[in-house]
Amino acid sequence: MAKRVTGPEIEKLIQLLAKVPGLGPRSARRAALHLVKKKDQLLGPLADAMVEAHRKVRICSCCGNVDTSDPCSVCTDARRDHSCIIVVEDVADLWALERTGAMNTAYHVLGGTLSPLDGVGPDDLNIRGLVDRVVKGEVRELIIAVNATVEGQTTAHYITDQLDGLDVRITRLAHGVPVGGELDYLDDGTLTAALRARTAI
Amino acid sequence: MAKRVTGPEIEKLIQLLAKVPGLGPRSARRAALHLVKKKDQLLGPLADAMVEAHRKVRICSCCGNVDTSDPCSVCTDARRDHSCIIVVEDVADLWALERTGAMNTAYHVLGGTLSPLDGVGPDDLNIRGLVDRVVKGEVRELIIAVNATVEGQTTAHYITDQLDGLDVRITRLAHGVPVGGELDYLDDGTLTAALRARTAI
Repeated sequence: MAKRVTGPEIEKLIQLLAKVPGLGPRSARRAALHLVKKKDQLLGPLADAMVEAHRKVRICSCCGNVDTSDPCSVCTDARRDHSCIIVVEDVADLWALERTGAMNTAYHVLGGTLSPLDGVGPDDLNIRGLVDRVVKGEVRELIIAVNATVEGQTTAHYITDQLDGLDVRITRLAHGVPVGGELDYLDDGTLTAALRARTAI
Repeated sequence: MAKRVTGPEIEKLIQLLAKVPGLGPRSARRAALHLVKKKDQLLGPLADAMVEAHRKVRICSCCGNVDTSDPCSVCTDARRDHSCIIVVEDVADLWALERTGAMNTAYHVLGGTLSPLDGVGPDDLNIRGLVDRVVKGEVRELIIAVNATVEGQTTAHYITDQLDGLDVRITRLAHGVPVGGELDYLDDGTLTAALRARTAI
């Protein structure tokens, strides 16, 4: 803004909101105005929630999940099957898989994928911790649920190599047609995989 | 989420972020994770900015702008021409007009438009304050810059009626073809208005 039309505190709020993923400079202004208008219903509680989250948030030293306790809610949940670990790239993937409610297992967050071009090596990921968990025993199966990208697959292979000789079953997510997906719009690789892995009706 | 995968403080943060315009439940989760990952670079400063904004934000008692001082930065800016007031529906419109840098005037925020169906009458808007400002004198021109909707135009007419007999020039924004706009995509009303208000090249 050329001339000042509002207070520096509000400009600062807009500036920081614009850094939140999903908000740009324009929507940050809209968001800030909305927050300011709903001062006591939204801005206040949100401010408190942020202060609280900032104070309490922890990265789980066992699985890498984000929580306010360490070990996290997943690692300490006695109703889960901790002999099966789903390996994911990111906490968002853990939450997404958990929303399906399909499994009731433990997780392990790598914190990314191997990517030599970006300077991400094995030591930058939480792979050592994963191997330790498997070595300690009591892990029956490892489901490697990384993204189906080149980096993801490289990471999956690297992990498999690291666990060579250990008594653990290593699996990965099935490739195939997304539920509700239209064949016409799918790439050749997915279609080929779906054909190869066809199942009896 | 079916089972708890993260702390209640983080779930609370996601819940509140989802109420911010521009963010939905899915992007709120993504935003929360990003904030938590950038705990000290983003979450902390944003929390502070919100606490500060919540503590300091004021609605200008003169023009209705949002600021941290009352009267606001616009009303107290001696370099502005306070004999010309641009009347807008919302603070967002004030900021948008101010970004153009086209005018160097005072503003007046109505806080909405007359809308009998939604139960918004003249007393729900900041119209009394506007009339007072004009009655006090020293206002030469009022530019009514409300949206070109039925409610906006009704509000403009109502304000004009209220100021009947006072020595002030009342104008409104020109209708016409948006800069960069294609005629083919414009509605008949806009094209008719643009033709009627044609100017010499």
